[in-house]
Amino acid sequence: MRAVTFQAPGVVEVHDVPDPEITDRRDAIVRIEASGICGSDLHIYHGRVQIEPGFTIGHEYVGTVLAVGEGVNRFAAGERVLGCFQCACGECFFCRRGLFHRCEHSRTFGHGATLGSLQGTQAEMALIPNADLTLRRVPDGMSADVALFAGDVMGTGFHAANASGVQGGDTVCVLGLGPVGLCAVQAARAAGAAHVVAVDSVEQRLDLARSFGATAVHLTEQDVRAEVRGLTEGRGADVTIDAVGDGRVLETALRVTRNCGAVQCVGVYAERTDVHMGLMWLKALTVRGGHANVLAHVDRVLAMMSAGLLDPAPLVTHHMTLNEAPLAYAIYDAREALKIVLTP
Amino acid sequence: MRAVTFQAPGVVEVHDVPDPEITDRRDAIVRIEASGICGSDLHIYHGRVQIEPGFTIGHEYVGTVLAVGEGVNRFAAGERVLGCFQCACGECFFCRRGLFHRCEHSRTFGHGATLGSLQGTQAEMALIPNADLTLRRVPDGMSADVALFAGDVMGTGFHAANASGVQGGDTVCVLGLGPVGLCAVQAARAAGAAHVVAVDSVEQRLDLARSFGATAVHLTEQDVRAEVRGLTEGRGADVTIDAVGDGRVLETALRVTRNCGAVQCVGVYAERTDVHMGLMWLKALTVRGGHANVLAHVDRVLAMMSAGLLDPAPLVTHHMTLNEAPLAYAIYDAREALKIVLTP
Amino acid sequence: MRAVTFQAPGVVEVHDVPDPEITDRRDAIVRIEASGICGSDLHIYHGRVQIEPGFTIGHEYVGTVLAVGEGVNRFAAGERVLGCFQCACGECFFCRRGLFHRCEHSRTFGHGATLGSLQGTQAEMALIPNADLTLRRVPDGMSADVALFAGDVMGTGFHAANASGVQGGDTVCVLGLGPVGLCAVQAARAAGAAHVVAVDSVEQRLDLARSFGATAVHLTEQDVRAEVRGLTEGRGADVTIDAVGDGRVLETALRVTRNCGAVQCVGVYAERTDVHMGLMWLKALTVRGGHANVLAHVDRVLAMMSAGLLDPAPLVTHHMTLNEAPLAYAIYDAREALKIVLTP
Amino acid sequence: MRAVTFQAPGVVEVHDVPDPEITDRRDAIVRIEASGICGSDLHIYHGRVQIEPGFTIGHEYVGTVLAVGEGVNRFAAGERVLGCFQCACGECFFCRRGLFHRCEHSRTFGHGATLGSLQGTQAEMALIPNADLTLRRVPDGMSADVALFAGDVMGTGFHAANASGVQGGDTVCVLGLGPVGLCAVQAARAAGAAHVVAVDSVEQRLDLARSFGATAVHLTEQDVRAEVRGLTEGRGADVTIDAVGDGRVLETALRVTRNCGAVQCVGVYAERTDVHMGLMWLKALTVRGGHANVLAHVDRVLAMMSAGLLDPAPLVTHHMTLNEAPLAYAIYDAREALKIVLTP
Repeated sequence: MRAVTFQAPGVVEVHDVPDPEITDRRDAIVRIEASGICGSDLHIYHGRVQIEPGFTIGHEYVGTVLAVGEGVNRFAAGERVLGCFQCACGECFFCRRGLFHRCEHSRTFGHGATLGSLQGTQAEMALIPNADLTLRRVPDGMSADVALFAGDVMGTGFHAANASGVQGGDTVCVLGLGPVGLCAVQAARAAGAAHVVAVDSVEQRLDLARSFGATAVHLTEQDVRAEVRGLTEGRGADVTIDAVGDGRVLETALRVTRNCGAVQCVGVYAERTDVHMGLMWLKALTVRGGHANVLAHVDRVLAMMSAGLLDPAPLVTHHMTLNEAPLAYAIYDAREALKIVLTP
Repeated sequence: MRAVTFQAPGVVEVHDVPDPEITDRRDAIVRIEASGICGSDLHIYHGRVQIEPGFTIGHEYVGTVLAVGEGVNRFAAGERVLGCFQCACGECFFCRRGLFHRCEHSRTFGHGATLGSLQGTQAEMALIPNADLTLRRVPDGMSADVALFAGDVMGTGFHAANASGVQGGDTVCVLGLGPVGLCAVQAARAAGAAHVVAVDSVEQRLDLARSFGATAVHLTEQDVRAEVRGLTEGRGADVTIDAVGDGRVLETALRVTRNCGAVQCVGVYAERTDVHMGLMWLKALTVRGGHANVLAHVDRVLAMMSAGLLDPAPLVTHHMTLNEAPLAYAIYDAREALKIVLTP
Repeated sequence: MRAVTFQAPGVVEVHDVPDPEITDRRDAIVRIEASGICGSDLHIYHGRVQIEPGFTIGHEYVGTVLAVGEGVNRFAAGERVLGCFQCACGECFFCRRGLFHRCEHSRTFGHGATLGSLQGTQAEMALIPNADLTLRRVPDGMSADVALFAGDVMGTGFHAANASGVQGGDTVCVLGLGPVGLCAVQAARAAGAAHVVAVDSVEQRLDLARSFGATAVHLTEQDVRAEVRGLTEGRGADVTIDAVGDGRVLETALRVTRNCGAVQCVGVYAERTDVHMGLMWLKALTVRGGHANVLAHVDRVLAMMSAGLLDPAPLVTHHMTLNEAPLAYAIYDAREALKIVLTP
Repeated sequence: MRAVTFQAPGVVEVHDVPDPEITDRRDAIVRIEASGICGSDLHIYHGRVQIEPGFTIGHEYVGTVLAVGEGVNRFAAGERVLGCFQCACGECFFCRRGLFHRCEHSRTFGHGATLGSLQGTQAEMALIPNADLTLRRVPDGMSADVALFAGDVMGTGFHAANASGVQGGDTVCVLGLGPVGLCAVQAARAAGAAHVVAVDSVEQRLDLARSFGATAVHLTEQDVRAEVRGLTEGRGADVTIDAVGDGRVLETALRVTRNCGAVQCVGVYAERTDVHMGLMWLKALTVRGGHANVLAHVDRVLAMMSAGLLDPAPLVTHHMTLNEAPLAYAIYDAREALKIVLTP
């Protein structure tokens, strides 16, 4: 089958690779209908996350079950499904506590040997381990464009708003309006946030956030702190979501959040950072980080997308074929796209 | 000043009563702009809740601060305010835990000696104890019709959805679509419920619920349980809100709720009831009861109403003058109104 | 192998039955070292819970792994283990939420066809489905007497104190001091309860509760409500645990619990009950029921038992052989024992 | 009356100052029976926290009510009381949410104009604002040595264990065994922690921690990370409490905590710090900071101390008179004392 493979930093190619085969009785094989390109794929593309040349990349997907192992109870061939970007065992210390994102045997699609040697989903077919836990049926009438967000980007936006404890009437500040930030805007609003202050410096993204009900604030042309304070009698945001992962953004997050508020870091941090711990301490803040627990959220996200409370469709800016993947990565790398959907 | 007073079961009259006076330095006096008639007022009207003849009734209100005691820090004469149906001390065991609805020194407006001898708000003026905790400023541009819901009916609807733990993607069943039930429909939806199944036997109320995004189900002409199961892969509702307070409704609630789900009884129970504890136990349900903790919720409710996430305006069916109160109570008693707003 | 089998109400016999065999790759076979007789076994013994004649009973067990299927990752032959009274799939709607006790594919040991046709553990060997989730290693140095409580009775006591939200400094009332009630006394104390009021009418049980740090109160010779109020400035218990499952006990629970407190029904309810909903509502109580989520708690319970914070050893009143099971059931039925441990 | 006053960095003196007078009807005046010297007092002593020369210091106290204002409902002259180190209004945004430690009108005893100009309690008498919220009755039979911990150091230890979410069976690591760290050891244990790993480099403090049930680990002579991992199957601590407030300690905290665990910073941070955000993010940690919410915890702490579940008595190393305060501060500054109690 054809698959998008990493070759070298800046080089992805569509190659013929072996068809996947069931090797465990809890496996399923899915014929891919659509796959997305994600910010995490760019880390690989840039060589910051190192994987083996020739490895198939991609981890967002919608498709149809082709075959299931004997131990798969919940799915059968022919069903239209979507899946999560990672698999979990369901039995370890972390899975038993519902912390699937830190499963001791977790494997992530398309991230090479370091994350479990699980071939990616930007391909004609994909092998899905522990299918009963990893897959979900696509609700009737849901487009592939929408469905493929459930197991990754919208799941992460939902996590941002929910793991941080957004409650009805809160003011939430979202810093960074990439796909995850924009999904967090929707998720915060759907959790009852009275005000969502959405901050970025790209007008198109601010417009999208505005269309999702947010108060859009331009990072450099407006005073973020003053805007947040103006909406909160001077207190600051109840919850701030850092959807960038950068020391300056974290500094802003600490400053715009009210006393006893929460800062949720969904943007990736990989290094040491200068953090104003004095400010964090004085304000009695809670700072949380890490990957989204998408496996725990995917049922909720699907139900909300199906009900129209969350709708990632406006984030899809490009549809391209699998064969166009090299061009698609170049466009995405140039920040000319929010979400590119590839179809075999 | 003029005030609506209880005289005898079925008899309310507008009488001249003494103007309120500040007797504690944390008191405020408010000139009433609008006051609502509530289901609780009917309990008094019917004599089920017994109060002294001549006592002023009513506990929903919007108005303007006329005067404040020396110990009032947050309000000044001239400000437009709304208040909660009850006061709390802010210092007792329960208040220290945020359980203001069970404050040891709680007083409820317009409920006679048994609830603290606090004259009601269906009057030209009202005395407001512990004003800093009881009152809130009306957000700019908010009508009296909307604002007077914050401290009672919408606060109760919000409580129903939030104390019961509604989360994004849940299916919520609301049994009984009086004003509280309809507000609970909105609050559940605003908390991210993917499906709100709204049950009643009055078409007009079902239509309103439908306009709020609910799946309306006729109590007698449809099969409530089948409808809920159809939306939940046969499991039942994650949360059920009993907005009636009746043994048969509770039985339905226990039956339509999924295993490990929650039943929130916001409808008033006053007596012994035959409860299917076997069912409750087998399904591992959580059943909660009691008044809403409106003082804890009013900030959130106001912010959500101000942002348009909650909107009680469609529930106001009648506007009448204070002098028309006897007629208004007769209309309300005949179930010809959802919410009647009285203006002096 | 030999096994204790149900024959008819009041009749259990030790018979030769086929050795268990691995039929699923996630199965394990355990050679039983010790097995307990539990209150649930009495329901079968009395015929209230109906199972097939000849079915092996028992669901508390400690032993040594004899063999594991290919899909068992966490255990190997030779390891000393204990297990939970029920199995769960780890993948369904409820398991994904950590609600293992209501797993859609749950099977309970020794309860016949209605609970999954899983042969019991009062035998020389037992088949353990989904072993990675069901079993745990016995901590070094822990006796069988202690270990076999982890997966059932102490897990239930822990659940009683924790699902009900006991916090440091609380006053907890435990109604009924059978093995579960006594374990709940320990668990409440270990969760930081300042006062545990333990109520029963059997002196020996009151003495045990006293030795666990409780304030023992005789059900009929003392005034339970007055004792609880005396410890709480008249408020009542923060949490009450009904470890009986009876309408009169529930009535007492509703009366001795403070406003906004919680009642946890761990005693089994199977039928309709007259409940004072008026009292429950006026006091704004939370009432929870159902089996303990032992699979979720077993790691914590083991750690606490291993650290000496929980210690069920004083509850073991009898050690008998598997062959003496008929006598053991007669003794247990006569309420002459708290916990009987059977060894092959 | 006599009072301990700050004069200059390193200089405290006992002076005659005016007796306190009631100026608000919610005030009380307390005759001080005993007052403690706290680590926060050292910040003032060292000039790091700047206050006006001549200001009375101290914020831990036990005494007897001398007089109350008309608005004090819960206390009367003659009652033996203890109090919290800070006052709160009970009515603002934060107090309404139970976040008393960040009250908008908070005042801290003995910290000069920056924290509300409230004279300290190392004196013969003290003025107590908002007495109903600030004070508590001393339980019968409780010594002053024990009682004065409730409103500050033990309240902070309790906060460390509870705000961080310690649950039964957890492994908790406490870094730094000053008075707060030692109280956190007790509080973690009382919350059901199976293992408390207590880390310091002072043998006496390690011995005390050991006597409280902890596994004592010498900071430099042992491998903290290896010790924690040895107790947790290699995972790390569920919760780590940083009771120092230092970048290197925070680094250790991030390293010894398991994936998805919590780090609670009770030690004071005042400046920028180099934080390994990459580690924090990869492990999906939660980091919380800030003062303890002692006003919210004091009832619970008192109940637990009264029941013997928490016992700070072993921390009191010195009893001295008020007149000896200059010497007491010198001793405390030389780290020769854990807790010095001053009596007028």
